[in-house]
Amino acid sequence: MTRTAAIIGGGVIGGGWAARFRLMGWNVRVFDPDPEAERKLGEVLANARRSLPGLHEVALPPEGEMTRHASAAEAATGADFVVESVPERLDIKHKVYAEIQAANPGVIIGSSTSGYKPSDLAAAAAQPGNIVVTHPFNPVYLLPLVELVPSATTPPDVIDRAKDVLTGIGMYPLHVRAEIDAHIADRFLEAVWREALWLIKDGVATTEEIDDAIRYGFGIRWAQMGLFETYRIAGGEAGMRHFIAQFGPCLSWPWTKLMDVPDLTEDLIDAIADQSDAQSGKYTIRELERIRDQNLVAMMRALKAQDWGAGKLLRAQDDALGRAELDITRPIVTVDRAVPLDWTDYNGHMNEARYLHAFGDATDRFMEIVGVDAECIAAGMSCFTAETHIRHLGEVHAGARIRVTTQLLEGRGKRMHLWHEMRVGEALVATGEHMVLHVDLATRRASEPTPQVAARVAEIAAAHAGLPKPEGAGRAVGQPR
Amino acid sequence: MTRTAAIIGGGVIGGGWAARFRLMGWNVRVFDPDPEAERKLGEVLANARRSLPGLHEVALPPEGEMTRHASAAEAATGADFVVESVPERLDIKHKVYAEIQAANPGVIIGSSTSGYKPSDLAAAAAQPGNIVVTHPFNPVYLLPLVELVPSATTPPDVIDRAKDVLTGIGMYPLHVRAEIDAHIADRFLEAVWREALWLIKDGVATTEEIDDAIRYGFGIRWAQMGLFETYRIAGGEAGMRHFIAQFGPCLSWPWTKLMDVPDLTEDLIDAIADQSDAQSGKYTIRELERIRDQNLVAMMRALKAQDWGAGKLLRAQDDALGRAELDITRPIVTVDRAVPLDWTDYNGHMNEARYLHAFGDATDRFMEIVGVDAECIAAGMSCFTAETHIRHLGEVHAGARIRVTTQLLEGRGKRMHLWHEMRVGEALVATGEHMVLHVDLATRRASEPTPQVAARVAEIAAAHAGLPKPEGAGRAVGQPR
Repeated sequence: MTRTAAIIGGGVIGGGWAARFRLMGWNVRVFDPDPEAERKLGEVLANARRSLPGLHEVALPPEGEMTRHASAAEAATGADFVVESVPERLDIKHKVYAEIQAANPGVIIGSSTSGYKPSDLAAAAAQPGNIVVTHPFNPVYLLPLVELVPSATTPPDVIDRAKDVLTGIGMYPLHVRAEIDAHIADRFLEAVWREALWLIKDGVATTEEIDDAIRYGFGIRWAQMGLFETYRIAGGEAGMRHFIAQFGPCLSWPWTKLMDVPDLTEDLIDAIADQSDAQSGKYTIRELERIRDQNLVAMMRALKAQDWGAGKLLRAQDDALGRAELDITRPIVTVDRAVPLDWTDYNGHMNEARYLHAFGDATDRFMEIVGVDAECIAAGMSCFTAETHIRHLGEVHAGARIRVTTQLLEGRGKRMHLWHEMRVGEALVATGEHMVLHVDLATRRASEPTPQVAARVAEIAAAHAGLPKPEGAGRAVGQPR
Repeated sequence: MTRTAAIIGGGVIGGGWAARFRLMGWNVRVFDPDPEAERKLGEVLANARRSLPGLHEVALPPEGEMTRHASAAEAATGADFVVESVPERLDIKHKVYAEIQAANPGVIIGSSTSGYKPSDLAAAAAQPGNIVVTHPFNPVYLLPLVELVPSATTPPDVIDRAKDVLTGIGMYPLHVRAEIDAHIADRFLEAVWREALWLIKDGVATTEEIDDAIRYGFGIRWAQMGLFETYRIAGGEAGMRHFIAQFGPCLSWPWTKLMDVPDLTEDLIDAIADQSDAQSGKYTIRELERIRDQNLVAMMRALKAQDWGAGKLLRAQDDALGRAELDITRPIVTVDRAVPLDWTDYNGHMNEARYLHAFGDATDRFMEIVGVDAECIAAGMSCFTAETHIRHLGEVHAGARIRVTTQLLEGRGKRMHLWHEMRVGEALVATGEHMVLHVDLATRRASEPTPQVAARVAEIAAAHAGLPKPEGAGRAVGQPR
């Protein structure tokens, strides 16, 4: 049966909640008096529809429906869960909770507050135990973290039910066991924000320099391991205790404007070392290093495909490194690279799709050589692959240097018939045969290339005309040799 | 001509420098009196060799050579650049610089110090202007950030030459224009570390909870945009000024233990808003939201492939969402999903390699159905694809829901001949024909499947025996219809 969430407050955060609930199959009932609410909800939903479903390897349930309501009480009526994302003023929040609890006694109310403690929120409520903090992070429809903070009056079953709801919509409820202002994550954000204000005020760094200092360094690390797991690695084989011994003395140095420092007592060091063992002790430092490196490589390459941040730097470095000299009198070297860590699969070798990835890169390079480059594509002419035949002749492992050579079997009119051979050293590990079409990007249909491209293709076709037809060309799947 | 770097201090940081220089083609001359240095350098180099080359789409230059030397002076002799990563004691650093500058006057010395100012380092040096801070981040061979901090005595050409060297080995030199203790990035790390110590000391959170609060939320964001670009988006169309107006008042609340806060004067707000415009003003907020979401999707999916962090959560959510019911009497639904944002390319449609990615997932699902599942693979039996033929019949765009059905054309002995059809709605957009072999993972050779798997394959082969042979099966590339 379709469940229903009430969304009280439909800004960026409330809209993010509404979008996540709907895409996970919940109906949502929204109250927001802002005349712009409809537009804002629609914009957040559009962003969520664009990005969230593709995160999953399975289809999401049918999208839930949204209704708008004239009051918090009306929106909350019949709801299985309520999320409150109204402005950060206690008087407003208390009024909204009173209306909701009158209309739907017993329903759990999760507040998106980034600062208030749940006992502040629940003060004077009819059912204080049903009011908890559920603090999400923007964009709510993508980031999994939600800080779940109960008050002392919250019964265990309310915590469990809230966890079930949040996990069910794909989030990670971090149960914050102690009530403090700003919970956990925002205390760090606050500390960084304050330090950043000092750096700008003192003219040390600009916003852009601060952002680069974050995203090219510790920001990437923190996307996959947090502060302590990262420092556990830095401590090396001697572990967390060694790291604190190294790093601890710095605490008494005037390194930040933010100076209140706890004493590093033996008790505190023990607590950190023991907790770190419980968290990460199942891995050796070597294993953690390798996990970290695989994660970093995978994320940096993901950013490279987006041409952003650290990935944009990698592209610039590729350009600086350059390629081998072009020689069209023989099969052309179109790929020459190491197999990255993120190209392998559960069989311990390069995944079959990465063979086509490499052959696709070879085709892209060949296109560039015949003049179908970024400029040509921007002008509306490109190439699409229509048909592919791959033979996997040998296994390839991460780190191996692969080299693809490309022979033009035929190139005239709208078609280029390409033959790629992939080698590791001298060993032929795969062949790829491809029919590639020149395409007009306006009509998305096969089209004659520009005269310049046609001439360059003809030149290579003439140069390759004397090469022997490769063994395996023209072959169908399963055809006997 | 091969250039040479001297590496003074060969621990995790010095070893990381040595590995990066070598993999980018520099020879390195190392001085480290630690008897364990050889082993440590080797371990870092092994990690770097495993991870760095595959970051690039082109081959790296031939790896440089390493020699070990008996003193800093000997190592620095003839070097084009010197990196110092000795312990954080000024007396040691001063002594090392004196030796280096006597042996190689004029060479630039970059210090890995995370805390000292360059003027402290250069005090009393023969050539103080040649000593700068070059503060990297672990792992040095992967993370691009290096804080480059000159002192007042550093001539501009030394800064330029240092930038060239660092950029040339694939790093991002962030020119820190003002000398302060701990430069920029470590001031943030310090602030977070101190706040984390308080949270542990007060029993609010464990190391693991703190790490989860980081890596499932703002950590992923900071891997691609920093503090200010992220908050610019949070400010929405009204921009940075609006964000500060919203967030500013919180600064006077007791949200962190670290309380020294600058006054939010109009001047400071202007500086931030103007710098943010200069940094990000070329994008609208909507554009920034989409860039952010594409980056997040790409990185979270990268982590999903590694089964780690936020990606591990996505896998659990996929399992919870479940799949359609299995019906083997017709072509079996083996993939049913939305096309993610990171599957598209410069032509604005799903990249050719992602067709094979989806067909590979369909093959994996078919394997699971016949019993070649994770348990079977762990026991040493799997399947490898030997041959593939793909026809691209229609374009597919991000967000489209694709459905793959799989017909078993033949399945006996060591071979399974599979036919995949990919549809968007009713439209056939691609076909995939594949020869898949049962493989013994010990010998890596084709092998008879287990009796259980053979029986299940025979059952499906019998169920599919009456299905018509699909149009296009047995076709070679370029063969007329």
